[in-house]
Amino acid sequence: MTNELKKGLDGVLVAESALSDIDGDRGELFYRGYPIDVLASETTYEEVLYLLWNEDLPTEAELEAFQSEMREARAVQPGIYDQLELLADSGERPISALRSSVSMLSAEDPGTGSDPTDLEAARHMGRRISAKFPTVLAAFDRLRRGKSPVEPRTDLSLAANFLYMLTGSEPDPLHAEVFDKALTLHADHGLNASTFTAMVVGSTLADVYNSVTAAVAALSGPLHGGANQKVMSALLEIDEGPLPATEWTEDLLEGDERVPGWGHRVYNVLDPRAEILKSELRRISNQTEDCHWLEYLGDIETHLTEDVGLPERGVAPNVDFYSGAIYYQLGIPLDMFTAIFAMSRSTGWIGHVLEYQADNKLIRPRGRYVGPTEREFVPLEER
Amino acid sequence: MTNELKKGLDGVLVAESALSDIDGDRGELFYRGYPIDVLASETTYEEVLYLLWNEDLPTEAELEAFQSEMREARAVQPGIYDQLELLADSGERPISALRSSVSMLSAEDPGTGSDPTDLEAARHMGRRISAKFPTVLAAFDRLRRGKSPVEPRTDLSLAANFLYMLTGSEPDPLHAEVFDKALTLHADHGLNASTFTAMVVGSTLADVYNSVTAAVAALSGPLHGGANQKVMSALLEIDEGPLPATEWTEDLLEGDERVPGWGHRVYNVLDPRAEILKSELRRISNQTEDCHWLEYLGDIETHLTEDVGLPERGVAPNVDFYSGAIYYQLGIPLDMFTAIFAMSRSTGWIGHVLEYQADNKLIRPRGRYVGPTEREFVPLEER
Repeated sequence: MTNELKKGLDGVLVAESALSDIDGDRGELFYRGYPIDVLASETTYEEVLYLLWNEDLPTEAELEAFQSEMREARAVQPGIYDQLELLADSGERPISALRSSVSMLSAEDPGTGSDPTDLEAARHMGRRISAKFPTVLAAFDRLRRGKSPVEPRTDLSLAANFLYMLTGSEPDPLHAEVFDKALTLHADHGLNASTFTAMVVGSTLADVYNSVTAAVAALSGPLHGGANQKVMSALLEIDEGPLPATEWTEDLLEGDERVPGWGHRVYNVLDPRAEILKSELRRISNQTEDCHWLEYLGDIETHLTEDVGLPERGVAPNVDFYSGAIYYQLGIPLDMFTAIFAMSRSTGWIGHVLEYQADNKLIRPRGRYVGPTEREFVPLEER
Repeated sequence: MTNELKKGLDGVLVAESALSDIDGDRGELFYRGYPIDVLASETTYEEVLYLLWNEDLPTEAELEAFQSEMREARAVQPGIYDQLELLADSGERPISALRSSVSMLSAEDPGTGSDPTDLEAARHMGRRISAKFPTVLAAFDRLRRGKSPVEPRTDLSLAANFLYMLTGSEPDPLHAEVFDKALTLHADHGLNASTFTAMVVGSTLADVYNSVTAAVAALSGPLHGGANQKVMSALLEIDEGPLPATEWTEDLLEGDERVPGWGHRVYNVLDPRAEILKSELRRISNQTEDCHWLEYLGDIETHLTEDVGLPERGVAPNVDFYSGAIYYQLGIPLDMFTAIFAMSRSTGWIGHVLEYQADNKLIRPRGRYVGPTEREFVPLEER
């Protein structure tokens, strides 16, 4: 046992994993050895799901069977809608509503209660969780807007079906495609705080619902999720305010505030996902002929790069910088962005938990006691 | 950064804490410097709650104010009962129902949405969570037995009120006292897996509901919670079966199975909590004039100590060995034991999260990538 305090566990290697590989100095991300840009341009999110949960990309037959199981599992029991309505009425945040409904979903899963070392049962539970995430999330948003939930369709991709359930009408193919890519980009990213949470919970051999519920809880923290919502709030503020984007950014920096969507604990250079999302935002903006979000973001990026020189100090745009404007143009409410992140990242959570449980060891660190010792007890009346 | 893999984080110091101190070699446990046996015999669980969440034991006036706030917070909104009924109807386990209802409770807490760095708001949320735990748990058990929930009373201690809500009648004073001590003994125990889970979630600055929901999830895993239920199941098996306790234990050992309630990751000698619980079990057994559970446990302990020699190998009775028989004699159903553990340990979860957030650092370890690299992409049609 070492006596060195590892607060934050920064740099501590806690597990081996074959899921994603990040090169923070070169700005590269791979899922099971495939570069993220290739996956984003050449595959669908459902292929990526299969890849992360298995060892390779699926064949056509494998993909067909996999998609079919997941699409059939999209529907939820009516009780979940009642619960979501209660949460909507109380003004709960979408990410918290998601946490509660994932937790509730375990009650209707036939796999709950199976042998905790049965990884095949766990895999099926994982698929059902991922399949139902979009359903509960879309239903929650509709219920709080006073609308009825839209039942999932089995003939649409996960991305298209989510947008369909959210809006009630089949999405524009470009929108579905861009959203599909955004899900791919967020599906896994090493042992971030929510994935690590899922693993700690999974290391007790608790079932996948426990891991995923706990991971949603972790993602709800402002130090983990939520940055793309802050970016979009900033863009709306710029849009409504008197200051051009450049001056707005200067003001922010003068107030010693961090620029949302810039800098990352593991990247010292441009986050490869940011580059892809920038070009996806351009596609959406060209289609809608509304380029002003892209322009604001471009102005901020140019200012921070050329005038402030942030990239020279290892601070560059991250995955959250461009995603907010994409989701906004897809019609997704700002306060849903973190829940959308959860919807995609559940892939990584489940993948890492199953991988860790296959060669499991309870995760149980130590604390160093720094409080008083050998205190003398004084009875209540004499204190 | 070191390249050494720290799987399980065994021995890794992840935080400093002034809450509890464990000496695994001497078999000692302290809460904020007070030995656990002194606290169990001289204080109430509510004083211990105060102690763990503050820096010292309360004065009479402090205890009065603290208890009053917590007792007023015991009631829950009717929607929670609806949710619990749904969970009861679907046959959900108590620990999973607890996870879902704690998550749901955030929607009715006035502190939700407050500034994540406002520790005073977090403290009040923590008190409300702890106050409502017994209410939802007792209600869940009654609902699944087809009975109406019993509303909490404010004139009873937390322990007495729980037994009252569970059974519908005011508990025998000895029962309430013994249960109070059991709650004290389980209130905190360093950075066990559920407490660490709570801290990881809290390190994202997610609110206390998120930390506690995630911790309940972790406790539900068989490698963390559940051992006292296994002990009690064993005692019932012995009671109904043909073999005396000693032979039953021999059979278990011959099958290479671990004896539930024996051995602990941090104690190499007798867990000090086991000793206290043994004497509490004796008090209950004397009162009920039913000593056969105590006798079975004594036979198992004698056999494992004198014939098998487990203690010489650092394996001794832990907190779970005697608690099951106590809860059983208090009329608590076996499958509630882990949820009872959660009810008490929520104290430690909340205490550690608040302590960590006061000097917060995001907990984010790394993984070592061990998968394939530079794979060539093959389109779906050609796979």
